[in-house]
Amino acid sequence: MKKFINSVDSFLTESLAGFTAIHGDVVKLGDGGAFVRRATPARDKVALISGGGSGHEPLHAGFVGVGMLDAACPGQVFTSPTPDQMAAAASAVGGPKGVLFIVKNYSGDRMNFEMAAELYDGPTATVVTDDDVAVENSTWTTGRRGVAGTVIVEKIVGAAAEQGGSLESLKALGDEVNRRTRSMGVALTSCTVPAAGTPTFTLGEDEMEMGVGIHGEPGRKRVKLASAKAIAEEMMTAILDDLKPTGALGEEAILLVNGFGGTPSLELYLMAEMARAELARRGVKVARGLVGSYVTSLEMAGVSLTVSAVDDRLLSLWDAPVHTAALNWGR
Amino acid sequence: MKKFINSVDSFLTESLAGFTAIHGDVVKLGDGGAFVRRATPARDKVALISGGGSGHEPLHAGFVGVGMLDAACPGQVFTSPTPDQMAAAASAVGGPKGVLFIVKNYSGDRMNFEMAAELYDGPTATVVTDDDVAVENSTWTTGRRGVAGTVIVEKIVGAAAEQGGSLESLKALGDEVNRRTRSMGVALTSCTVPAAGTPTFTLGEDEMEMGVGIHGEPGRKRVKLASAKAIAEEMMTAILDDLKPTGALGEEAILLVNGFGGTPSLELYLMAEMARAELARRGVKVARGLVGSYVTSLEMAGVSLTVSAVDDRLLSLWDAPVHTAALNWGR
Repeated sequence: MKKFINSVDSFLTESLAGFTAIHGDVVKLGDGGAFVRRATPARDKVALISGGGSGHEPLHAGFVGVGMLDAACPGQVFTSPTPDQMAAAASAVGGPKGVLFIVKNYSGDRMNFEMAAELYDGPTATVVTDDDVAVENSTWTTGRRGVAGTVIVEKIVGAAAEQGGSLESLKALGDEVNRRTRSMGVALTSCTVPAAGTPTFTLGEDEMEMGVGIHGEPGRKRVKLASAKAIAEEMMTAILDDLKPTGALGEEAILLVNGFGGTPSLELYLMAEMARAELARRGVKVARGLVGSYVTSLEMAGVSLTVSAVDDRLLSLWDAPVHTAALNWGR
Repeated sequence: MKKFINSVDSFLTESLAGFTAIHGDVVKLGDGGAFVRRATPARDKVALISGGGSGHEPLHAGFVGVGMLDAACPGQVFTSPTPDQMAAAASAVGGPKGVLFIVKNYSGDRMNFEMAAELYDGPTATVVTDDDVAVENSTWTTGRRGVAGTVIVEKIVGAAAEQGGSLESLKALGDEVNRRTRSMGVALTSCTVPAAGTPTFTLGEDEMEMGVGIHGEPGRKRVKLASAKAIAEEMMTAILDDLKPTGALGEEAILLVNGFGGTPSLELYLMAEMARAELARRGVKVARGLVGSYVTSLEMAGVSLTVSAVDDRLLSLWDAPVHTAALNWGR
């Protein structure tokens, strides 16, 4: 295992210490390191809290700040955070307007966030994201997996929360964005969880895992490596075939081209061009694009495409100011 | 070779097409794709132009925009751009106040930028960066290599250019920041240049290349993998031993922890914490930190540390607004 690490036990703690030290103007570490919260609390709004296993950085701690989350709870690598962490985060950042949990659809995460909602003494609601069209049910999931589309949900709901939205309206908005959003991923290599010390899975030199999950869960099929154009076409077909029947897809979409950690920028932008061309061919314009490693699987080489069908109202929320470690725009 | 690619010949062109399409509000492609320039030209200031081989993204095209570069010339992967590209960029973005070239110290880049300055019919000056303390002379360099410190030079000089600095003063400022800045890198894996199709070098499962260059050039030594703390200590010792004799290092520094492409965020922030602690132990406070993959070597796993000794004037230029694809802050 080749990693910059001192020990498996201190890996997450030391990384979080670095993250909060470097971004001290944006975030601080919650009590006992159980969560990351905004450096400047905002109690007069609904508090947005997300979290999940570590190893997907910058998701979620990188999205804590004005315009997105109020707190994020990091579990150990690829392991759900505990209900205690989530409840502590809710107590720390929740105010009278309530707490909205944004939860990727994995069984462990859902169960623990449900327990946290019971532990927390205040109004809560939960948005569950399940944007991955690759497979129904998976290693750690009943139903579809929640993947990179979660960033779009967190950004748009975060903007609406900043504008004073009620808990009920934000829950409805989050569910709506999730319904409008579809993703699919492909892996060229595996990743190695520090506590395991060996790769999660293995792929031949000429193979890729089409439809891979963000923990290396199996996808739809293991196939021969194909051209970037063919890969983008297959993924975009799967995404749009699933999105079109909802009736949500108009002429514009947000395109997120997400690297899993080990794929360089040149390749991500090349895939963005292939995805953009595929969308154009089908009459959909990329109204906004985001390209980078935002929902990762440690050092896995691979990419996911996410298409989110938007209207002017959703685009305006997407464009609203955001000031976090990983996304930063507007005043 | 596992990459998202259609053909070696179209690799760069397709990636640049994606980059300029996604960031059309910030950049556009220059004539014939020879360079990337600001979407909105600024002719009443000194024009800053950089460039070099591709494969180091976001350097340099990701730093084109308000507050940093006016144009960037991408060569093929790890290959210098041509004098024609640079001269075309200068003609496109240069105004009466002149053109400042910012050039990493590689023999090919320096020669070509010199020829471009001769081809261009207007006032020019050149800042050469050579911040890498690892080795003197290298595969493609006489003297020291210019590496991640170039980002700090481009940011600070870019801010001063925006404030109306003269060509002469910006040249002096760039040279000063370069003198105050030192870097060193380490690789855990190699990278594969698409046109070569095989890894640039090989490392054993328990080896690392200490002092590696950003094209995989040999460093100081090939040694057994060590703890993150030991790696940070060795690199910081080399950096500070070199920086201290200049007399520039006071109580504050900018720390850049740069990933080479294949190292995930969790490990970069862990290294940031180790580097921060090392600096603190030696009485230097991290006034500002930047952690991410900014000067990459395709998908190489590895990290470089950069320390730039700053004063209040330089910090204020660092904090000035910047709006590029890869760095974005301030109004």
